Amino acid sequence: MATLQDIGVSAFINILTAFAFLLAFALLRLQPINDRVYFPKGYLDRARTSPRSSSNFVGKFVNLNPATYLTFLNWMPQAMKMTEDEIIRHAGLDSAAFLRIYTLGLKIFVPITIIALLILIPVNVSNGTLSFLKRDLVMSNIDKLSISNVRPRSIRFFVHIGLEYLFTIWTCLMLYKEYDNVASMRLHFLASKGRRVEQFTVVVRNVPRVPRQSISDTVDHFFRTNHPEHYLCHQGVYNANKFAKLVKKRDSLQNWLDYNQLKFERHPEKRPTKKKGFCGLWGEQVDSIDYYNQQIKDLEKRMAMERQKVIKDPKSILPVAFVSFNSRWGTAVCAQTQQSRNPTLWLTNWAPEPRDVYWKNLAIPFFSLSIRRLVISSAVFTLVFFYMIPIAFVQSLANLDGLEKVAPFLRPVIELKFVKSFLQGFLPGLALKIFLFLLPKVLMLMSKIEGHISLSMLERRTASKYYFFMLVNVFLGSIVTGTAFEQLHAFLHQAPTQIPRTIGVSIPMKATFFITYIMVDGWAGIASEILRLKPLIIFHLKNMLLVKTERDKEKAMNPGSVDFPETLPSLQLYFLLGIVYAVVTPILLPFILVFFAFAYLVYRHQIINVYNQRYESAAAFWPHVHSRIIAGLLISQLLLLGLLSTKKAANSTPLLVILPILTLSFHKYCKHRFEPAFRSYPLEEAMAKDIAEQEAEPGLNLKAYLDDAYLHPIFRSFEAEEEELAEVKLDER
Amino acid sequence: MATLQDIGVSAFINILTAFAFLLAFALLRLQPINDRVYFPKGYLDRARTSPRSSSNFVGKFVNLNPATYLTFLNWMPQAMKMTEDEIIRHAGLDSAAFLRIYTLGLKIFVPITIIALLILIPVNVSNGTLSFLKRDLVMSNIDKLSISNVRPRSIRFFVHIGLEYLFTIWTCLMLYKEYDNVASMRLHFLASKGRRVEQFTVVVRNVPRVPRQSISDTVDHFFRTNHPEHYLCHQGVYNANKFAKLVKKRDSLQNWLDYNQLKFERHPEKRPTKKKGFCGLWGEQVDSIDYYNQQIKDLEKRMAMERQKVIKDPKSILPVAFVSFNSRWGTAVCAQTQQSRNPTLWLTNWAPEPRDVYWKNLAIPFFSLSIRRLVISSAVFTLVFFYMIPIAFVQSLANLDGLEKVAPFLRPVIELKFVKSFLQGFLPGLALKIFLFLLPKVLMLMSKIEGHISLSMLERRTASKYYFFMLVNVFLGSIVTGTAFEQLHAFLHQAPTQIPRTIGVSIPMKATFFITYIMVDGWAGIASEILRLKPLIIFHLKNMLLVKTERDKEKAMNPGSVDFPETLPSLQLYFLLGIVYAVVTPILLPFILVFFAFAYLVYRHQIINVYNQRYESAAAFWPHVHSRIIAGLLISQLLLLGLLSTKKAANSTPLLVILPILTLSFHKYCKHRFEPAFRSYPLEEAMAKDIAEQEAEPGLNLKAYLDDAYLHPIFRSFEAEEEELAEVKLDER
Repeated sequence: MATLQDIGVSAFINILTAFAFLLAFALLRLQPINDRVYFPKGYLDRARTSPRSSSNFVGKFVNLNPATYLTFLNWMPQAMKMTEDEIIRHAGLDSAAFLRIYTLGLKIFVPITIIALLILIPVNVSNGTLSFLKRDLVMSNIDKLSISNVRPRSIRFFVHIGLEYLFTIWTCLMLYKEYDNVASMRLHFLASKGRRVEQFTVVVRNVPRVPRQSISDTVDHFFRTNHPEHYLCHQGVYNANKFAKLVKKRDSLQNWLDYNQLKFERHPEKRPTKKKGFCGLWGEQVDSIDYYNQQIKDLEKRMAMERQKVIKDPKSILPVAFVSFNSRWGTAVCAQTQQSRNPTLWLTNWAPEPRDVYWKNLAIPFFSLSIRRLVISSAVFTLVFFYMIPIAFVQSLANLDGLEKVAPFLRPVIELKFVKSFLQGFLPGLALKIFLFLLPKVLMLMSKIEGHISLSMLERRTASKYYFFMLVNVFLGSIVTGTAFEQLHAFLHQAPTQIPRTIGVSIPMKATFFITYIMVDGWAGIASEILRLKPLIIFHLKNMLLVKTERDKEKAMNPGSVDFPETLPSLQLYFLLGIVYAVVTPILLPFILVFFAFAYLVYRHQIINVYNQRYESAAAFWPHVHSRIIAGLLISQLLLLGLLSTKKAANSTPLLVILPILTLSFHKYCKHRFEPAFRSYPLEEAMAKDIAEQEAEPGLNLKAYLDDAYLHPIFRSFEAEEEELAEVKLDER
Repeated sequence: MATLQDIGVSAFINILTAFAFLLAFALLRLQPINDRVYFPKGYLDRARTSPRSSSNFVGKFVNLNPATYLTFLNWMPQAMKMTEDEIIRHAGLDSAAFLRIYTLGLKIFVPITIIALLILIPVNVSNGTLSFLKRDLVMSNIDKLSISNVRPRSIRFFVHIGLEYLFTIWTCLMLYKEYDNVASMRLHFLASKGRRVEQFTVVVRNVPRVPRQSISDTVDHFFRTNHPEHYLCHQGVYNANKFAKLVKKRDSLQNWLDYNQLKFERHPEKRPTKKKGFCGLWGEQVDSIDYYNQQIKDLEKRMAMERQKVIKDPKSILPVAFVSFNSRWGTAVCAQTQQSRNPTLWLTNWAPEPRDVYWKNLAIPFFSLSIRRLVISSAVFTLVFFYMIPIAFVQSLANLDGLEKVAPFLRPVIELKFVKSFLQGFLPGLALKIFLFLLPKVLMLMSKIEGHISLSMLERRTASKYYFFMLVNVFLGSIVTGTAFEQLHAFLHQAPTQIPRTIGVSIPMKATFFITYIMVDGWAGIASEILRLKPLIIFHLKNMLLVKTERDKEKAMNPGSVDFPETLPSLQLYFLLGIVYAVVTPILLPFILVFFAFAYLVYRHQIINVYNQRYESAAAFWPHVHSRIIAGLLISQLLLLGLLSTKKAANSTPLLVILPILTLSFHKYCKHRFEPAFRSYPLEEAMAKDIAEQEAEPGLNLKAYLDDAYLHPIFRSFEAEEEELAEVKLDER
């Protein structure tokens, strides 16, 4: 058990680390050479011009103005300057709603922290040992401040129960207000956005194949019949995965050509050459520019053939279409209704934004989807509960003896004492580290296999899988000893009423662990988020090694988006920790508060200056945030119930049993009340927007506007293909 | 443990009883005096005229034609004559789908019974005691034929597991086919029905109150704006509960008036008189006809006032409306989409048939609904698990000592020996009997409080509550000893893996109990269903005592509907028993088969000749039937798993764990595939029907057709009120 002093030392070290990171950030961001790493958003908006072109040579790389160093923390007030409306305009509603999660955390936990510290710590500490209070407090074990210090059968437990009620009600109140807020922000955002193609488009899946009729004709006929007054046109979807590969290849060849031409321009005395063999290492020496020109020409011929094949071959047209309507009302109607008497055919949904579409999954048939979901759910279950098994296996292989057997020539090196001890400390953890690094990617792959058709949906599904993993392996795994699989086994063979007891009883004991976790993972994680060490290094490495042309440079400074699949779940884990420990060990709460405040500041800065979202889902993730905080409330109530039952405060059980029921009904009510705003588009809104638009632009040619909005992106990678493009479009009419 | 002989005797007695019932039915139904009890449907269709008017005096009451007695079982082939299409036309799709449940039972259980008897009984019996087979079989305990007879760790358990797989697959196959069938029957039924008002009408709940605007104007404005091309008209809903009471009172007075006038006509020499006081027992003597005439006149004045109040008072207009559209397409769109940005306002649903509307619940606001559902679910839970507590309390009061204390003057009678023993045997059971008699009514009341707005929905909800009660208290309650509450307590304190074990191990032991149950409750229940003893007695009692006028006579022979809330759950219990015992004690299966075959015959007869459904929901209950049979499959798999684990056949566990997962995914798939057909109306169908109708009747005045379809029924109880009716309608335009 750590004492308060231990925690203090640990906090001091972590604060120092965080400050070091912040200082590093403050210094690095002032250097012009890093400008594209720390302010890429500015470049995208064309609001910022490259500082390198405006100064002397050294000034291009290092900031020589000493005045700017004095105010190195001024990014903080700068980050706070922008209002929420400005953030929405600047970075979209997703980002603004993401920031609201942090303010929600503050709104929930600031009053809870104050009340818990003021009421619970005296109650916990003073139980019978009042006279020794002061002496105890200095040297005390952290448990003295927690519920563990209260004697069994004490009447004081009613204070804890009362506060659990109070905290639940407060949290629910905040959740309700926030859900209400975000839902109306979403509707307002959707209403105030200008005309967008996705407002008029529905994605139709599982179009039935009618013999002797093309998919395109089938779609056209169906919607002309069943939505005669609203149907406008549609865009078929091609299975162009092969063509996409060719396009990628040509991009790379073009890049090499540009590079060589640049080289030739700089040194006109020597035409660049290359060897034809593998990686240019051997083979016949040829003129590079001619070679790449020839290669590109050949490839373009193949591409033209492939493109013809894709367009002409009826098999490459998938039974999927983006159907456009002449009004938002008609679109809303089509997206929300059942079309065919066979509910597995003609599945309609709102089309995601064109940049949000995940093209590869559009072709999956309905029946296969059910099976994929079943397989993936069992895979996730297996992964969460049994992931230790393969890692332990790899670890058993990757020990020193194994290494010596595989590579006997390494033995003299390995046998050196310090190398050996380093490897022994390092190798077993390596497999786990690699696994944890790969985990989000694996989960994303699983979500892709599940068959969702938009990137935003994929990220939400990945986030929920990751949350499940963290809940079981970080939260429960830290509280109950043993692997997740052992826990599962134990839980299956325990009475259901025993489980909250088993977990509840060890909850207070793990408070110090979680405090350290919050500091190391939370505080330091946020500090490293603002430092952007990885993008910084990668950017400079790329600049030095890989950047050959202007095109490459643009790629190298791609700022990326907020990493929702990883940040949302860990954020929700902090909510869980705060809610669970609020009545058990309230001393943990200030650490969480610091995390929320600090993270809010940092992400505000990042969203304003760095990230550029790939898509805009209009805060579609909010229902998940809401329901996971509710899940946190339920977990905390059950664990408190278990904890109190070990404290022999059994007469309090009925009081606590009511709470989860009330919480669940609150959740159900909120779901009814707000979730439709995130799933469907009310006809009232659609009609109002339609009427407003008709008045503003009476003669609008909507068909031309929607014409090729949902064309597969590869078809427009080069402008030269105008003709075929026209052909494709013609085909769709 | 009962032997096979015991079962045989019991079966013999039950078959005799059933035959006695059938014989009684065959004799009674031939008597003209009972004609209205056994063939009321004929009278409703005007296909049958009263036999009393066509014969001599005795012939009016007793059938004197001996020939008809010889063919007293000919109702059976008669019942089988009608084809399914004819039944649908004759009695509606609900009845036809109800009969399909019995054929589904036969389709599932005939092959299962044959295979189980042929394979499992030899496997169970022959385990090691092969040489004593014959001698054993005669005298054997019924357990010898069941899985209990197989030795632990026997390899024979793989036969049981294999058959469980086979039976599950077979059941799922049949379920799939039947669901498919019923779903397309439903769509076909809805499509082939003529024009119906509910096809054009949507019920809108939670209309917001706009200040200085009547509900009617609000509705009109909203739908004129948001469904401009399809909105036709709407009908407001009045809170006319008080008026309805007055109407009822007037009906009764009118009846008394008719009675007295009839009396006066028969005996013109004496004007009937009555006393004005309570129940006509004391008070001033008055002329009856004048008295009732005066009373009716007074009441009509009050009614007129009340009607004016209802129509004029804006408070009596509820925030609910029946909104009609000019096409099925427009109606389908409105019913399936979200109207307002606040999803708790403007809730739209398909309107039930006018005769299916439960008017009283139309006024319940959305928020109250959530609370009501929460309260009722906990009430049902309490009722199911704790219903024994109040009954035990009443029983402890209602014993002989209690009775003697309350009524000491009864002591001499009670102390008589045979009276005492009779009462002692009778009184304790009385409370339980009364409770079980009242249970469906209590559950119906609970469903009404939940706030469903159609009778069909109320009946479905009641059925599901009743099923839950039967599952816990009849099925589990019979298997595990102790009250449901004690079981719940035990289960909460057991490991989840222990529960199927506890139940599974006692499953084979209870086979004889359930065989008896099937015979007593199933066979005899069905036989008494066809005898209609209760309606028979009530009809004749009413005829003798209460029937004063023609109006009363019509009421007395109201045939009623199939009692879905009671028959569906008990039917589903038999499915559960069959599925659970198929691999455990296959000897139970023939008894179930007899039940299904017999019940099918009886209900076919009843549906053709007796019942007259109150409403038509187009087989809306089928998803419930389907999912409860799936639940039966899951329960049987879990129990077999538990049973086998006590038999130490633990290595078979993985094989059996896969089965529930597959069953669940099958259920999920079916839900996706077929349930939409029961919840929404595909636009394709709606459009096709609209076009067909437009071609057939181009100049149809739909508005006139829909005009007062959804007027509260009390407003049309008397034709005299034409004027006000016109006023009401005018108000709505």
